Amino acid sequence: MEMLLNYQTMVTDLTGLPVSNASLLDEATAAAEAMYMAFSSGNKKKNVFLVSDDVHPQTIGVVKTRAEAIDVVVKVMPHTEFDFSAGNVCGVLVQYPNTHGKIIDYGNLPQQSRSAGAMFIVASDLLALTVLRPPGEWGADCVVGSAQRFGVPLGFGGPHAAFMATTDEHKRKMPGRVIGVSRDSRGQPALRMAMQTREQHIRREKATSNICTSQALLANVAVAYSIWHGPDGLKDIATRTHGIARVLANGLVFLGYQIAHQDFFDTIQVKTRAGEANRVMEAAEQAGLNFRYIDESTVNISMDETSTAQDVDNIFKVFASVRGTNSVTAQEISNATDLSNSIAAAFRRASAFLTHPVFNLYHSETEMLRYLHKLSSKDLTLATAMIPLGSCTMKLNATSEMIPVTWPSVNSIHPFAPPRQVAGYQTLISTLERDLCEVTGFHAISFQPNAGSQGEYTGLLVIRAYHESRGDAHRNVCLIPTSAHGTNPASAALAGFRIVVVSCDSHGNIDVADLRKKIAENKENLACLMVTYPSTHGVFEESIREICSLVHEAGGQVYMDGANMNAQCGLTSPGTIGADVCHLNLHKTFCIPHGGGGPGMGPIGVAKHLAPFLPTHPVIPSSTSPQAIGPVAAAPYASASILPISWMYLKLMGGEGITKATQVAILNANYMATRLAPHYKILYRGSQGNVAHEFIIDMREIKAACGITEEDIAKRLMDFNFHAPTMSFPVAGTLMIEPTESESKEELDRFCDAMICIRQEIKEVEEGKADRLNNPLKGAPHTADMVLSDSWNRPYSREKAAYPLAYLRQNKFWPSVGRIDNVYGDRNLICTCPPISAYEQQ
Amino acid sequence: MEMLLNYQTMVTDLTGLPVSNASLLDEATAAAEAMYMAFSSGNKKKNVFLVSDDVHPQTIGVVKTRAEAIDVVVKVMPHTEFDFSAGNVCGVLVQYPNTHGKIIDYGNLPQQSRSAGAMFIVASDLLALTVLRPPGEWGADCVVGSAQRFGVPLGFGGPHAAFMATTDEHKRKMPGRVIGVSRDSRGQPALRMAMQTREQHIRREKATSNICTSQALLANVAVAYSIWHGPDGLKDIATRTHGIARVLANGLVFLGYQIAHQDFFDTIQVKTRAGEANRVMEAAEQAGLNFRYIDESTVNISMDETSTAQDVDNIFKVFASVRGTNSVTAQEISNATDLSNSIAAAFRRASAFLTHPVFNLYHSETEMLRYLHKLSSKDLTLATAMIPLGSCTMKLNATSEMIPVTWPSVNSIHPFAPPRQVAGYQTLISTLERDLCEVTGFHAISFQPNAGSQGEYTGLLVIRAYHESRGDAHRNVCLIPTSAHGTNPASAALAGFRIVVVSCDSHGNIDVADLRKKIAENKENLACLMVTYPSTHGVFEESIREICSLVHEAGGQVYMDGANMNAQCGLTSPGTIGADVCHLNLHKTFCIPHGGGGPGMGPIGVAKHLAPFLPTHPVIPSSTSPQAIGPVAAAPYASASILPISWMYLKLMGGEGITKATQVAILNANYMATRLAPHYKILYRGSQGNVAHEFIIDMREIKAACGITEEDIAKRLMDFNFHAPTMSFPVAGTLMIEPTESESKEELDRFCDAMICIRQEIKEVEEGKADRLNNPLKGAPHTADMVLSDSWNRPYSREKAAYPLAYLRQNKFWPSVGRIDNVYGDRNLICTCPPISAYEQQ
Repeated sequence: MEMLLNYQTMVTDLTGLPVSNASLLDEATAAAEAMYMAFSSGNKKKNVFLVSDDVHPQTIGVVKTRAEAIDVVVKVMPHTEFDFSAGNVCGVLVQYPNTHGKIIDYGNLPQQSRSAGAMFIVASDLLALTVLRPPGEWGADCVVGSAQRFGVPLGFGGPHAAFMATTDEHKRKMPGRVIGVSRDSRGQPALRMAMQTREQHIRREKATSNICTSQALLANVAVAYSIWHGPDGLKDIATRTHGIARVLANGLVFLGYQIAHQDFFDTIQVKTRAGEANRVMEAAEQAGLNFRYIDESTVNISMDETSTAQDVDNIFKVFASVRGTNSVTAQEISNATDLSNSIAAAFRRASAFLTHPVFNLYHSETEMLRYLHKLSSKDLTLATAMIPLGSCTMKLNATSEMIPVTWPSVNSIHPFAPPRQVAGYQTLISTLERDLCEVTGFHAISFQPNAGSQGEYTGLLVIRAYHESRGDAHRNVCLIPTSAHGTNPASAALAGFRIVVVSCDSHGNIDVADLRKKIAENKENLACLMVTYPSTHGVFEESIREICSLVHEAGGQVYMDGANMNAQCGLTSPGTIGADVCHLNLHKTFCIPHGGGGPGMGPIGVAKHLAPFLPTHPVIPSSTSPQAIGPVAAAPYASASILPISWMYLKLMGGEGITKATQVAILNANYMATRLAPHYKILYRGSQGNVAHEFIIDMREIKAACGITEEDIAKRLMDFNFHAPTMSFPVAGTLMIEPTESESKEELDRFCDAMICIRQEIKEVEEGKADRLNNPLKGAPHTADMVLSDSWNRPYSREKAAYPLAYLRQNKFWPSVGRIDNVYGDRNLICTCPPISAYEQQ
Repeated sequence: MEMLLNYQTMVTDLTGLPVSNASLLDEATAAAEAMYMAFSSGNKKKNVFLVSDDVHPQTIGVVKTRAEAIDVVVKVMPHTEFDFSAGNVCGVLVQYPNTHGKIIDYGNLPQQSRSAGAMFIVASDLLALTVLRPPGEWGADCVVGSAQRFGVPLGFGGPHAAFMATTDEHKRKMPGRVIGVSRDSRGQPALRMAMQTREQHIRREKATSNICTSQALLANVAVAYSIWHGPDGLKDIATRTHGIARVLANGLVFLGYQIAHQDFFDTIQVKTRAGEANRVMEAAEQAGLNFRYIDESTVNISMDETSTAQDVDNIFKVFASVRGTNSVTAQEISNATDLSNSIAAAFRRASAFLTHPVFNLYHSETEMLRYLHKLSSKDLTLATAMIPLGSCTMKLNATSEMIPVTWPSVNSIHPFAPPRQVAGYQTLISTLERDLCEVTGFHAISFQPNAGSQGEYTGLLVIRAYHESRGDAHRNVCLIPTSAHGTNPASAALAGFRIVVVSCDSHGNIDVADLRKKIAENKENLACLMVTYPSTHGVFEESIREICSLVHEAGGQVYMDGANMNAQCGLTSPGTIGADVCHLNLHKTFCIPHGGGGPGMGPIGVAKHLAPFLPTHPVIPSSTSPQAIGPVAAAPYASASILPISWMYLKLMGGEGITKATQVAILNANYMATRLAPHYKILYRGSQGNVAHEFIIDMREIKAACGITEEDIAKRLMDFNFHAPTMSFPVAGTLMIEPTESESKEELDRFCDAMICIRQEIKEVEEGKADRLNNPLKGAPHTADMVLSDSWNRPYSREKAAYPLAYLRQNKFWPSVGRIDNVYGDRNLICTCPPISAYEQQ
């Protein structure tokens, strides 16, 4: 969390806006999120969103896809033609520098926009902003972009973190997560998730974003890059990158070409004679170089920190050869170039950035290593203990599966490389598609959705497109059971559906009678049902086939939430059950690490009749079907470079291994439920008395009896070296436990022992032997400085606080903060790095 | 240390002998160490060492090299011809299975040997011993071998750990380190270095081994392999390996070849027609296969766990093609082969092994990861804080330097691969030689010595050979100053020199007058001087050139100890100063990580006149000079696969970088000495008042005044998250501190702050404010369970014990054990894993 707070500080500093979230999925979806932010901020009649035609095509594509579903009208035109006079514009999107590399002075457009009540959104580039005046200083309300070039490899499109910064005025509408500084029970600064205001857990269909996974790990990488380089280092990199682009531009002019604009940062646009661009392409590919070809006389070329004089020499040779002239060298041009005023004064950044000590202390490998090691030692990970998060499937991420991600052949390919250059990726993706089709019983897979939430959303758009193709555009009702993940209604709302809730019975199953009733009431307009299997209550719902049939009979489609695929693989499948679409959380079932909130991948599988509607992409078509929906992510295969992890998993396990894993996952959950049943109430079970791969413990009676809550247990588990289970989902006042197949009986027992020990502590409260408010549960977690304090004055002993079970004396993971004060954090919202003095002993 | 204890347990279990050390350098030097053990155990007149002629040639070579220097007569012959009747045999060495793969029943040879007062030493193979009767069960006194195949890559020869196990009778003479179990101040089990009886720190020239670095990291890898696989897994691997060798043998018989012996484990010897072996070689190399060619009609082939049916098919094709016959497949042969009695009953292992829980609990990646993570979290490493060990140069080991070690192209090559197949290694080694020659001012480098101690020894053998070549074989006096590292006299004694000690003056410099005197006294027989520069006292000795001249004038050679090269590189060099030989600790100055005691590399640089004497190798000649000495290591370039680390370091730094590093290292030491001088006595300084790259703090006056010792300070530093400096070397009652160039001023200050804080605590004892025996220093280190104990009853507070400075509240590294009880450990020597119950709270 400290790194994410650093990330927010970095983004606010560089963009010149006061508030940032801790990452989004990619630049294109970030722009679409900003569009939704603009739309939902105001009057719903203001539904026009203006986009400059020099924004990246994939960004425009994703914004259009997203807008269409919610009836926002996207108008793409030169920004000089933006017209606010009709009073219906909710926001505008421009890019700085634009897709062709030009740095544009937007004059008073931001002010005009604001006067018209429209949000002014700028897509930008963090490296450029180290030397360019940041949009926050010239009127932007929101800045979005990608942090990829801060140390994250290309990865054939991802993963990398996108950023979003905004003004104080708009901060409560910002999507994603915001880390904030609060204080803990010791009065010490402590970090927490401060805002997820648009998130879905609570607001469900009223949420204004469905973002969950958000590339947190990549945000860590990006900010680590800026901590390592510091403000001066980043400026050096930017200056060098710009300098080499300037030398390139000047050399091409020397060779007789025109450069379209002089105000650029790292990307130049070369004007050739008509038709000559093709010859440039041929010569360039011969030389092993890919450029961007805009039309038959326009070539865009970008430089970055890895560009060398040799690269520039090679480019010069390509352009010289096209004209049959002698080439020139970067050195010769450089000698003749004055770089001191290369960026026009009007655009030059004057303000300081990254002044916090964290960006100025760790510039040697030794110091950086120690800082990262210190932070990592504060995280309780799978390397220490099981993480029993329900629905999160915290299974082993095997090292062998991870290794290919580090290979340059996997991570150094541009997502828009010509398809003929990426045969390896094509094979990887097609074999993975085939394997996943086999596992899911589906016909085709789209790898474009970048996370589970995006998969849900895409799946719903596919269903929508299917109905439209059949003249059923009026079908707009999405049935969602009360037990559904909160993301389901959020995604459905964003996809333009009307949500009708179906109730559950006392066993947590969908109430089939109520389903029949709701289907009947909405028969004409029924679009789909969203359902999770096994249910979020941890039970294999026996009526699942009947449920699917009822929906199909009414002309609806069945969307299956793939969160619980870990209980299906090899034993059954969404296709077998009767679903039409399902997303797969490759980071849950298929071994991509969770990364503390991403990267993930949320590909969707579909039945044959839906395959034609899977998304395509404006730059690299990912579908040849004319019925394909527009793009839902910036890259055609999203976070393609982590697909080898799932590929490896499937190849290593084979069909038999996958089935065994599912069986063991279910067995483990039932073993734990059986051991814990004498001590806690297990909320739901199937008709045979079994649970699926996860189960729910009900704390409500305990709370009523003695005031101990599920949160107290979750915090107390930290004293036992355990991460908390999922709290209060899907039922408030409960804990949901999923052990996965990766855990040994010894580890399951260790967790059960901890839970049983905690139950004894609760009993002491129930029986009046321990104080209701001052006991090991309410006092948890206990930090080392707390328990060894010379002024310890609690009614229970230090040893009871820290070593409730004997194994902890040998192997104790110390929580680094006490119980967080959420109220204080809400009242004092601090979302950038506090001064070091805040950490000094108070 | 727990892993090394596990390693010892593994070795004792597999060899069937009760005591093991925690690794040696390679099988050949381990055999030579055993030879020395046998020789030094008895009467010096028993100086014949019998070696079976079917021991690996490199082992015989190293034993011979070592024996020659100490006038032990090595006789190589078939073991059936061993004759003990002259009563002069100190030991015998046989191999099981032998170098040709044959498993030999040595009958009553062990008993004969013992009756003759000779130690019976067996070179063996750990994997074979999982299925073969271990030598300890049929009379061996000592078993040596390599643990390489337990998970360590070939690495073109290394690094890998060698093992040695012996009987209780011989344990006190065993070289290297033995980890033992003692108890700490809490009465809890705690590990420590229990024995290093033959080591040099104290015994100096009376030491019977000079081993320091001992491949500890590789011993960790090897035992991790056996923990992962467990006894059943290892037996499976061995059975499979043997099975595939049997199939290979049967197939070759089917193809018309003869197999020399039927009792084999993994290596078969194929008899061809006369001259046919050459044709096999041609065909095999064509097919990408390397075999071992014994003579024109004999080919040895080994199988291992990676061998596949496909490999065997390919071998069959090679042999079939030589005879122009149809080949056969492994499958076909396998179907016709009964493997159940493939190993003769007489050789089959019946006894259990690896029964301790540690070898039976961690067979899933999750469990293994957690076990290793738990152990690693007990180690205070450079990732947490500086390690100020004097003379150890604990500098940054940059990640980029480490990466090539993981490449298959670096680590998957056999050391005896034909030289024409290893052009990459040849280039690497020759450029590294050139670079190191430039840094040292020498003419040539030998990369054969596997550690600093081996470098010393080899350098001395080279000097010896040089004198012999000039008819000066009588020159046998080695001058060594009192300030020398203890390894120097140990190495000199092993190289057959007579040691004459030269005294030092009050500044820690060599007393030139005494040197002149000792030279004069030994003029006729002077062989060499061993000298460290800067001196072990941390001072640039100003008379160093004069010293070298005096030795040269008397016909002696100057051996320079390279331990302090980190203060020379780029500023001066051994060649400039006038040395003739110098070893380089690549793991000190040139960035190979220390690995907790290896791997290291101790190449030696020599002046031109000594180059012809550098060692060669019996299998792959590493020298073409007829004057070359015999091998000093099992592989021609020792631990070749870690050479890329030093290569990368030199290439990344360049000459300027290396010089800057040396300057900063010296600056850092002087900064610390200056900050600490008001608080502690700095023992030696140069004439300008400066120290070199390390310095000594004298505690003797403090001890006299209040009883606080250097050990108390070392232990108290653990409470401040710091590793102790070097204790009592080169002067008893002192601490020697070397910061290296890698540390920032912040870290140097943090260490100085800790030392100054400790000085205040000492003052409290001096002034009677704190008890002399019960104070934070004597009580250190303080574990977490100690300071939060409900029964804390010390006169100082818990917070003073655990948080003497404020930063520790944010970032505390908890010691895992209290002060070790060495006396208890000495009285109760336990060198294998204790039962789990020993760790339960007492």
